[in-house]
This record gives sequence, structure tokens and C-alpha cells, in this order.
Amino acid sequence: MVRYSIGVDLGGTNLRAAAISESGEILEKISGKTDLSGGRDAVLDDIAGRILELRERLEGQELAGVGIGVPGFIRMAEGVIVGSNNLPELEGVPVRDEIGRRLGSAVILENDANAAALGEKWMGAGRDVEDLVLLTLGTGIGGGIICGGRVLHGFVGMAGEIGHITIVPNGNPCGCGNHGCLEKHASATAVEAMAYLMGLGEGLSAKDVFELAEKGEPLARAAFARMGAALGQALAALINIFNFPLYLLSGGLLPAWDYFAPAMFAEIETRSFTWRHTKTRVERAILGNEAGLYGAAYLPFQLLKS
Amino acid sequence: MVRYSIGVDLGGTNLRAAAISESGEILEKISGKTDLSGGRDAVLDDIAGRILELRERLEGQELAGVGIGVPGFIRMAEGVIVGSNNLPELEGVPVRDEIGRRLGSAVILENDANAAALGEKWMGAGRDVEDLVLLTLGTGIGGGIICGGRVLHGFVGMAGEIGHITIVPNGNPCGCGNHGCLEKHASATAVEAMAYLMGLGEGLSAKDVFELAEKGEPLARAAFARMGAALGQALAALINIFNFPLYLLSGGLLPAWDYFAPAMFAEIETRSFTWRHTKTRVERAILGNEAGLYGAAYLPFQLLKS
Repeated sequence: MVRYSIGVDLGGTNLRAAAISESGEILEKISGKTDLSGGRDAVLDDIAGRILELRERLEGQELAGVGIGVPGFIRMAEGVIVGSNNLPELEGVPVRDEIGRRLGSAVILENDANAAALGEKWMGAGRDVEDLVLLTLGTGIGGGIICGGRVLHGFVGMAGEIGHITIVPNGNPCGCGNHGCLEKHASATAVEAMAYLMGLGEGLSAKDVFELAEKGEPLARAAFARMGAALGQALAALINIFNFPLYLLSGGLLPAWDYFAPAMFAEIETRSFTWRHTKTRVERAILGNEAGLYGAAYLPFQLLKS
Repeated sequence: MVRYSIGVDLGGTNLRAAAISESGEILEKISGKTDLSGGRDAVLDDIAGRILELRERLEGQELAGVGIGVPGFIRMAEGVIVGSNNLPELEGVPVRDEIGRRLGSAVILENDANAAALGEKWMGAGRDVEDLVLLTLGTGIGGGIICGGRVLHGFVGMAGEIGHITIVPNGNPCGCGNHGCLEKHASATAVEAMAYLMGLGEGLSAKDVFELAEKGEPLARAAFARMGAALGQALAALINIFNFPLYLLSGGLLPAWDYFAPAMFAEIETRSFTWRHTKTRVERAILGNEAGLYGAAYLPFQLLKS
């Protein structure tokens, strides 16, 4: 009999889930659209149904538990999503207990970036360390902090909001209320805004800008260099604050590494004496979209070990 | 028989030590000048001598251990001070083992800001929490992070260098190699520089500027407001990163709280949605100069408990 857990990556458009063994082997996997049209009960039924489907496939094996990664803030003590741009239907809903009741088994909720960070720690680029910070570079910038092998939650579960630290004191206004957040300067959205401001064209996606950079377009490369510098400034602060051995980058912008990494490292080198005096690593995460599944699945195993 | 430990605060000019009981009572205390003129062996002999003096006064009681707070970086694994502007004579010296050998008992080294943070956690303003960040506002800005009741060290012991996170991307150059560090905008030195630039007079100390503020001088108050805003920007970042319940301020600038705190809170309110959505506290530390002694003395007790 194999002991396994189920990790779920619940996004605004997609729902993915995997049954993963204690040794980190993916045993079964399902994915599909997240159907948010039917209201909260239908959504919860749908999520629980998919998890049950996976459980049926593993009939006879021992389920250690279910972990669910969700975009947004979670009040950990109550298992409630309190803020999520991508899943507004589930805001204020006691997702943990509602799904747990439907499954008849315990569920652990976790922020998606935290789950990705934990996944990289368990089976990815962070396997050899106990402390790391992961930044996800997508439409926004998420952050997950692993401290002593565990997710750092803070006192209500909101730790790791690294996308909203100030990079440019009087910079562009951010939806969070701040000005000049990292997210306004180093996300895919920021690259798109820079490309537009530089006159590269209207309605370009970050992928379009990346392709222009690949073709040698200097302004497209400059946009990624600017993005890398902003990221480097934030990483220098994190390195000075945490003195962790490893900082990982993941997300949709990762393929543009060659265009943003040189400016990023130059900025870190200038701004962090801790970097200059220690063997700190800033690297690419390696699990891609699977990181969140691994991390979510690891949560029940970690709970059992503690 | 009382079990006690000895906490030492080793500075560039003063050496203070206290024998403190397990319940946090100061039993004996000594202080004096740090004599650095005789070379490293003389300094080490002097430090050990003062500790032995304290131990003699507690004859018959049980010594749990000795903790020493020092300004500068410590390679925790080796117990060596690797960078200290205030104690260059001891750089590269295996202080932990050298003093331990002279005393015939185990010694724990800790960075002074970390020791102060731990002291506030043990017997000060942080008694009711397990996680806090302390900033010391003096000539420079030091930081200490307490996570799960313990000092967060990072992988070589350099965590907590909050004074060197970037506040103004193209700001004034700092000795650390960076530009626009928090320390260049919110320390006593920064207040003095602002007062001079504002034309308040030459050679004013931060205390002079504080006294001018007390007399109602608008430019002196403006200098503290600017300092508070820079501090607020850094605190907003820390609050977003850690989501800890408590952030403490200590150090020589603390008496100017009334002049810098309003701008500091205004900046935090704007820049941190975590602040706006949680009951996070930013408060004054309460142990003053004693915090480092308490923290250093707590180290052996904490080691015995673990």
C-alpha cells in the first residue's frame, strides 16, 4: 500500500490536482477548467468532485490528506479566503471546512505562491536548503517564504507579499494602495506597460515583447533590463533582510531570464553587501506549473511529520 | 541556589555586563570603558576579567552560560566577528572560543541588534509575541528579527541588515556600496545631514535637532518628518514581507517619536495593505540600553531549553 496525498492548484481559470506519493512521485493527475458560473456551492461541489475522482483512482492506497493552493489571502486559523482577485466567488467562504466536509477528510489551504515555494523546497530547486524565498513573475508578483523548511505565514497568513514592497517611492499607483510596488515594475504587466511606453506597439503581451527581444529588438531588451533592475533591487533587500542561501524565480517571465538576469545581478551586486560576502544563490525554479501541486500535496505529509 | 546567566553588551566604547536570573531579574551589573588600546589579547583578557568579576559576586549560584552581544557580523558557526566598524580590533578573532577558554565555560556570541530584539521579546515590549522585528535607530540602523521566539540568523548569521535596504533607488551612497539605504535616510546621522542641508546650522547633533524641534523650529520638525517617512516606507515593506504582529523601534532617536511617528504611520498606512487589514503594531521598545543585556543573557537559557 502506497501512502499518498492530493495536491490541488485552484486558479481562476484552471483547476489541477495530483495524487503524489510520500517520495514525491506523481501517481495520477487531472486538470480542467474552474467553473465559477454556478455560484459558490456549485464551485465547492465541483472541486470536491474532482478530488474524489482522483481518490477513486487510488482505491486501496492510503490517503494522507488534501492540500489546496489558492490565489489570494487566507486566514489560516479559519481556513477562509479573505482576498482573491482571481476567485472573488470564494471570498469569505470557509473553503477548507466546506471541502473537507464534502470529502470526509481533512483539508489544508495554502496561498498558491507559498505552495509553489514549498513544492520547490520539497522536490525542486530548493531540495538542498531549509530556507528560501520564491518569487513568481506573472501578471502580478507573488512571494513565498520557506523558513526552517516550513511556509512562513505571519500572524494571519499574509506573509510573503513581496510584490507590494516599494521599489520606486513615487512610482505608479498600485491596486494595493501603494505607489511604485515591485509588481508595477517587474511583472509581465509591467513589461507590457514599458513596451507600450517605449513605442514598441499597442496591445503587446509580455510574450510578444519577449519574442521581439529574441529577434534583437533593443527596446524590448531594454524593457526586460529595466524589469531585471527592479527585481534586483527587491532581491538585494530580501538578501539583506533574510540572509537565506537561496532565492528562486518562477512564473511566466522566466523564459526571458537571459534578458533580465544580467541587470538583476548587477543591481544585487551593487545593493547587497550580504550578497558580495556570502555564497547566496539566485536561481530559476525548476518545477514550473507543478510546483504548486507538489507544495499543496506536501502539506499533509508535513503536518503528519510535525 | 539561583540559576543565572551573564549577558554582555560589548560596544566600541563601553562594556556592560549583567548577571540575570532565569526569571529575568537583574542580580548584578557592571559597566566600564572598552579598552581597545592594548591589542586583541588585552581586550579579550579584559572582557573575560569583567565577566569573572561578575561571576565571583554570584559565588554559590548556578551559572547557565554567557551571552555576548557585539556590534557587527558574526559567522555563527565559527563564533568569529567578521565585520565591525566599532570593534575593528576583534575582526577575524575567534572571540567566542577565546573568551570561552579564558572563562572555562561556554560562550554564545550574538549581533547586538539581534540581542536587543531577543531581549525585548524575553522581558520587554515583545513578551506577548513569538515573532517581531526590532529596528535600532542610532548612528546607523540595526535590525533584529525574532521568528518563532528565536533570532533569525540566515545561513551565515547576517540576517536582519534592515538598515541597508534601499529606500531611495538613486539616493546617497552608503558605506555598504548601495545607494539610498534606509540608514542614509532615517538614522541620527541622516537627521544631522538633513538639518545641515536645510540650513539649521553646522555641526548639529541629532539631539540638537531634537531640541530645536521641541522649541517649535519647523525645519527641525520637517527633518524628523522626512526621517519618519523613510522609516515608514521600510516598515511597510517589512510588514508586507513578514506579516508579523509587532515591529519595535529603539535607539537614540526614540525620544523624537512625537516628531517622526506621524509621518511614519502615514507612510505605512498608504504603503501596506497588510497593515490596513490586520492589527499590526508598530511600537516603542521599552528596555532601552538594557535590551541587549537581557537578550545576551537569555541566549544560554534558550539553548538549554531547546
